[in-house]
Amino acid sequence: MSIDIGKYLEEKRQLVDRYLETHLPPVGTSPAVLHEAIRYSLLAGGKRIRPILTIAAAEAIGPPPLSLPPVACAFEFIHTYSLIHDDLPAMDNDDFRRGKPTNHKVYGDGMAILAGDGLQTMAFEWCSRADLVIDIDPRTQVQIIAELALGSGNDGMVGGQVLDIQAENQQEISLEELQNIHAHKTGKLIRAAVRVGALLSGAGMTQFEQLTKYAEDIGLAFQIADDVLNVTGTREELGKDANTDAERGKQTYPSFYGLEGAKKLAQECADRAIGRLASFDDKADPLRGIAQYIVSRRK
Amino acid sequence: MSIDIGKYLEEKRQLVDRYLETHLPPVGTSPAVLHEAIRYSLLAGGKRIRPILTIAAAEAIGPPPLSLPPVACAFEFIHTYSLIHDDLPAMDNDDFRRGKPTNHKVYGDGMAILAGDGLQTMAFEWCSRADLVIDIDPRTQVQIIAELALGSGNDGMVGGQVLDIQAENQQEISLEELQNIHAHKTGKLIRAAVRVGALLSGAGMTQFEQLTKYAEDIGLAFQIADDVLNVTGTREELGKDANTDAERGKQTYPSFYGLEGAKKLAQECADRAIGRLASFDDKADPLRGIAQYIVSRRK
Repeated sequence: MSIDIGKYLEEKRQLVDRYLETHLPPVGTSPAVLHEAIRYSLLAGGKRIRPILTIAAAEAIGPPPLSLPPVACAFEFIHTYSLIHDDLPAMDNDDFRRGKPTNHKVYGDGMAILAGDGLQTMAFEWCSRADLVIDIDPRTQVQIIAELALGSGNDGMVGGQVLDIQAENQQEISLEELQNIHAHKTGKLIRAAVRVGALLSGAGMTQFEQLTKYAEDIGLAFQIADDVLNVTGTREELGKDANTDAERGKQTYPSFYGLEGAKKLAQECADRAIGRLASFDDKADPLRGIAQYIVSRRK
Repeated sequence: MSIDIGKYLEEKRQLVDRYLETHLPPVGTSPAVLHEAIRYSLLAGGKRIRPILTIAAAEAIGPPPLSLPPVACAFEFIHTYSLIHDDLPAMDNDDFRRGKPTNHKVYGDGMAILAGDGLQTMAFEWCSRADLVIDIDPRTQVQIIAELALGSGNDGMVGGQVLDIQAENQQEISLEELQNIHAHKTGKLIRAAVRVGALLSGAGMTQFEQLTKYAEDIGLAFQIADDVLNVTGTREELGKDANTDAERGKQTYPSFYGLEGAKKLAQECADRAIGRLASFDDKADPLRGIAQYIVSRRK
């Protein structure tokens, strides 16, 4: 594998950011405060991992359609809306995110709820608008929208957040419960991002299944690495308070496996993910690189 | 016009309710509390005006496809999610809705936010799931999803709610501002519900435009009638506190036109809506009846 994954991620992050900046409603569009609140969180310097996964999965199969960027951005909209809502006082009550005050700290709880609601709608809007999605077979387009909905809804991200809230009210949860929470809260949307990339490039059944398994493995790796970073990262690196899980008495992968054990497990997941791509050529190198990046990142 | 609109509305309401009850995830589906919170608000005895508009618009054109019910229900999901979020303490802070304690009063603010989020996702899920939408041309299906997104998003319902919140913080708003708020907050989703019905039955361009104008007229009639009911209705009729607008110092159609003037204006809007359907045959009688019902209803 010869790819410089740092360079790849930076290039694609810039591509996503440029697409967002040129296609979001112009500053001042009514209601101005709503669009401002949306931009505040959306353009706060996210890593764009989910849209990049969609792009990398599409490119692993073959030349992607022109409509790749709006569909990839939809995953960032869903992710960002979930962060805005999760940070609310009624949920995790976080004051900082990506090094900045959280959305509701700046715009108030009501506007933050609405900015999140509007971002969710935008995800489906950008996947269905005739001026943005121009060269995808409509049958595939409907499948993409269904994947997005299933990954982000009650049996996906929203359901996972509910399970997470419930777990915080319990004394102890089992490792199986922890895995179930994360498989839904973060896993299903990552899985959908990869599968949608595969659909965009017309993946065959076998490739689609291999990419799905890849996505499940990196989803788990991602979450374990996140838990590890919460212990080892600094406030500067994370852009939010560090070591919050332990302070809240939250059970995490390090609390089950120890810090070193959790690191080892994350690496095993990344290796397994890479193994899923054995039959793919070097067009899948970005996906291989992302798997490794996920467990070695510092933020 | 020979139709018994009360009977028609009751039949279609039952159809929508039966479809919901048989197609929602079974009670106990994980996370159980999320699905319970969703059912609590969704099955609280709503009038189902939006899905019925989709059905009536489809039937006004011709035999609708088998996929009409899931798509019609999507509008009820969007409407219900907006009620749950609007009732939150961070927004209108209402304790009662449809005669029952509001969602967050029963399940807590965090769960109410998530139930609303999940309901929004379900709207797009039900319009895209291959097992529910079985006989619509995928190109039309994508158009339907785009209509749903545009009617409910930042330039539709969500944007209207933002304008409404902003207006509450002002001393005075103009009649134009009031109309702009409602055109977005309630008008755009009603418009989308009717247009989607027309798309479902393959309306021609002229019919589509006439139905769009019909929808805009009844959307306005609906809002004026709502403001009138807030003054004249009782708590028992409304299922929520009455005369709250005046108590909150909120500007409404009666505060601009007086009570009788507002009633007259609502009737004019309904008449104009019915006039839009001049070239339609008696298959459009339910739409005509709904226009009249909207301004004569007691709740």
